[in-house]
Amino acid sequence: MAGFVLDERLAGSSSFIADWDLCRVCLKNDKTWPWLYLVPKRDKIREIFELAPDDQMQLMREISRAAQALQSLHKADKINIAAYGNMVPQLHVHVFARFKDDPAWPKPVWTAQGEIPYTDSERETEIEKFKNCFGKLEA
Amino acid sequence: MAGFVLDERLAGSSSFIADWDLCRVCLKNDKTWPWLYLVPKRDKIREIFELAPDDQMQLMREISRAAQALQSLHKADKINIAAYGNMVPQLHVHVFARFKDDPAWPKPVWTAQGEIPYTDSERETEIEKFKNCFGKLEA
Repeated sequence: MAGFVLDERLAGSSSFIADWDLCRVCLKNDKTWPWLYLVPKRDKIREIFELAPDDQMQLMREISRAAQALQSLHKADKINIAAYGNMVPQLHVHVFARFKDDPAWPKPVWTAQGEIPYTDSERETEIEKFKNCFGKLEA
Repeated sequence: MAGFVLDERLAGSSSFIADWDLCRVCLKNDKTWPWLYLVPKRDKIREIFELAPDDQMQLMREISRAAQALQSLHKADKINIAAYGNMVPQLHVHVFARFKDDPAWPKPVWTAQGEIPYTDSERETEIEKFKNCFGKLEA
């Protein structure tokens, strides 16, 4: 991760949770949906196929771990996963929880407008919960 | 793949291109975006983390191959990848090409409305192009 710098738009819309082997894991600052960013700590990569094969495999393991944590902590009805990068070129994967009573269900969340930021204490609590859960999943 | 049956909504909105080791690969019938469905030929799987670890790794290899084919054939500005499944429970991954002059750029395509089906001959041509390209990527 020498030289890795998180894109400022990703940094500005999220909080740090953990550095995994490949990815930085951040909590998106929108409590409408429990939402993680996974950002491979590799320079100048826009597409998943540009990652080295071993990194691609590790990305899948980390996506899976993030999804399991969301499922375990939030009892989601469905985990949604997306890698777009049309606006922010730094490769990043969205992994987030969906619920049958959420404001966009069953449509993609991108049709919903407006974010509801966590309060400081809510965010700290959420981050702690993820850290504890990640610890169990890595064991 | 014994017993694998493609969900009827996926089947009804796409055409068969190929069966890979893990996934059935289909062309979505909307020429607005070159768009592939990757559907793991496994029963009763909704989430990526429910796949066996080896299947998860194979899914990443096949996502990567599909993305490279789209990039190679269509000179996309960005490949978008999404696994939602809020409406169709059978695990499926969308892999599709985005262009700076497409009707939704840079927003997620889900904000755009309306599909433009291929004509029969356009679809056949597109499927042939993918088959040829897949052959080279598997070599």
